[in-house]
Amino acid sequence: MGDSRAGSDRSVDVNRQWILKDRPKGQLADSDFELRRSAMPQPGPGEVLTRTLYVSIDAANRAWMSPVRTYTDPVEPGGVMRGMTLAEVVESRDPALRAGDIVEGAAGWQDFAAAPARALHRVEKRKPLSMILSGLGVTSLTAYFGLLDVGRPRPGETVLVSAAAGAVGSVAGQIARVAGCRVVGLAGSEDKCRWLTGDLGFDAALNYKTADLGRELRQAAPGGVDVYFDNVGGAVLEAALFSMRDGGRVVCCGAVSQYDTGSPGPGPRGVPGLLVVKRLRMEGFIVMDYYARRRVAEDALARWIADGRLKIREDILDGLEHAPRALIGLLGGDNIGKRLVRVAPEPA
Amino acid sequence: MGDSRAGSDRSVDVNRQWILKDRPKGQLADSDFELRRSAMPQPGPGEVLTRTLYVSIDAANRAWMSPVRTYTDPVEPGGVMRGMTLAEVVESRDPALRAGDIVEGAAGWQDFAAAPARALHRVEKRKPLSMILSGLGVTSLTAYFGLLDVGRPRPGETVLVSAAAGAVGSVAGQIARVAGCRVVGLAGSEDKCRWLTGDLGFDAALNYKTADLGRELRQAAPGGVDVYFDNVGGAVLEAALFSMRDGGRVVCCGAVSQYDTGSPGPGPRGVPGLLVVKRLRMEGFIVMDYYARRRVAEDALARWIADGRLKIREDILDGLEHAPRALIGLLGGDNIGKRLVRVAPEPA
Repeated sequence: MGDSRAGSDRSVDVNRQWILKDRPKGQLADSDFELRRSAMPQPGPGEVLTRTLYVSIDAANRAWMSPVRTYTDPVEPGGVMRGMTLAEVVESRDPALRAGDIVEGAAGWQDFAAAPARALHRVEKRKPLSMILSGLGVTSLTAYFGLLDVGRPRPGETVLVSAAAGAVGSVAGQIARVAGCRVVGLAGSEDKCRWLTGDLGFDAALNYKTADLGRELRQAAPGGVDVYFDNVGGAVLEAALFSMRDGGRVVCCGAVSQYDTGSPGPGPRGVPGLLVVKRLRMEGFIVMDYYARRRVAEDALARWIADGRLKIREDILDGLEHAPRALIGLLGGDNIGKRLVRVAPEPA
Repeated sequence: MGDSRAGSDRSVDVNRQWILKDRPKGQLADSDFELRRSAMPQPGPGEVLTRTLYVSIDAANRAWMSPVRTYTDPVEPGGVMRGMTLAEVVESRDPALRAGDIVEGAAGWQDFAAAPARALHRVEKRKPLSMILSGLGVTSLTAYFGLLDVGRPRPGETVLVSAAAGAVGSVAGQIARVAGCRVVGLAGSEDKCRWLTGDLGFDAALNYKTADLGRELRQAAPGGVDVYFDNVGGAVLEAALFSMRDGGRVVCCGAVSQYDTGSPGPGPRGVPGLLVVKRLRMEGFIVMDYYARRRVAEDALARWIADGRLKIREDILDGLEHAPRALIGLLGGDNIGKRLVRVAPEPA
């Protein structure tokens, strides 16, 4: 951490950068990354120099490594690994920002970055600052818009959430509770399941690794599932489709079961047959499409956090050097809650 | 045909019935059916005796043979094969209907049936009566509600239709033209493709059996597909998903590629990944759910037929004895337009 703490004396500093060496073939590994020590970036006119405080570690990071263009350009090998960040402005060459401002952006996995001021989003300071990326961050907004706008749950309905102990799933399930629904979570360990039912108020939680999923879903949701918030795709999506009630909605948020493989497998059995006979709607979304209403969502999330209805758990690894391991572990399911890498301490 | 023509003298008549002998294992065959000669049915109080004029032959007939309950109960082996019918009332024991009325119902594959009057839908007579099952029938209503209510095409968008030379597809494509869309059809022969572009006004038609579908779709819809009206599922659905434009809608109407097999294959690659990155909506529906607005749809269809914007082609086989062959052939794609079996001549 010495490098980044010494950032106030830039002249002697280096910028540590995690480089994506090559597109991963199959499962992501440490060897896909290389830590490079580069010269400090110099902001040009209209740009600012930022010091990274936190890097957000998200399953989507892995999807960006696919050579196929998704909703965003793929990460190019040889470049700094992309990632959402919270950073402090160190030097500004744009009137819109000044030194000391806290900004959200996509500085990537590095200590410092020079970026156009217009590519950054100045945020209000709060304690801890990490909450801007966790409880009020993109993962929570994803849960909010995905569940409410795409899933459209009605009070009394049953909502099923996969990767329910993750950053998106844990918030989606709690919002479903706020919306008056019965909530069933799917997670990959007994510990996670206990957290969901014991701390977060989920009505039931199933360990999909040990459960006979079809049978246990029928027990946990005897009348069927009205809204399935899908973060994983694959076999779990297939089981969920068979458990849907007529008129159900599947919120396609992610497919983490498919990201970290050489090539995605075939789709779930039951597509399109079950969609027809049960009149199901499956709908994908990208959170950025909803940013016109971002403020409304942030206000709601902050209110629920303040009144205790929404509990946020942060899973913070200390030090930029741990970023690859943080992502590899997240793809393997070893996080509970929102995973961040702390790159530099929050300013006093 | 002698049996049914002699229906006015019921005392000497027999009722020919096609019995489903057993649930088909794999592909449907003649040997799954047996023609039985039964005694004339006797209508009880509140019932009517009907003489079948036409049996509608639909891909859904095959889906009903699956042991799994779909949106309707499965056809039970040993019973008369289920099918939608147009029939003439021969004798009525209910004040709501009288002899000579023409009724829609589900009398099945037989010359005569006794049924509760409330299970039948009296229709206005028109010439030819067959149009009640073809241009104005359930297949056209399916096309109407599926395209307009589920697909929600906007003028200028590109609509792709599979099984486009079938009863549903040919009407869905023509309605999309009425709605101001560019329309691409997929069909299984050059003849069908010529009919789609030459007679029905489709902008393009591809023979999916010979085309490199992905490549030809990119040529026929260079900007991508906005609405895909899917009658087939399987590999064609997979190719279509890869051709969708961001924000596209997939109308899940049927999965004829899956009905006539021992067990459905895996789902299309790209579910759910493509749904997420392209923000696609896939939605299934059952036409009966829209029957509250049936009259509005029938009026629109009749108007478009009258002014020549909607062309209806009937594919009529003569004689109840041909019903199994009519369905087996339809599942193999040998029909163009709406397939019916004429069981008795239309009354003068």
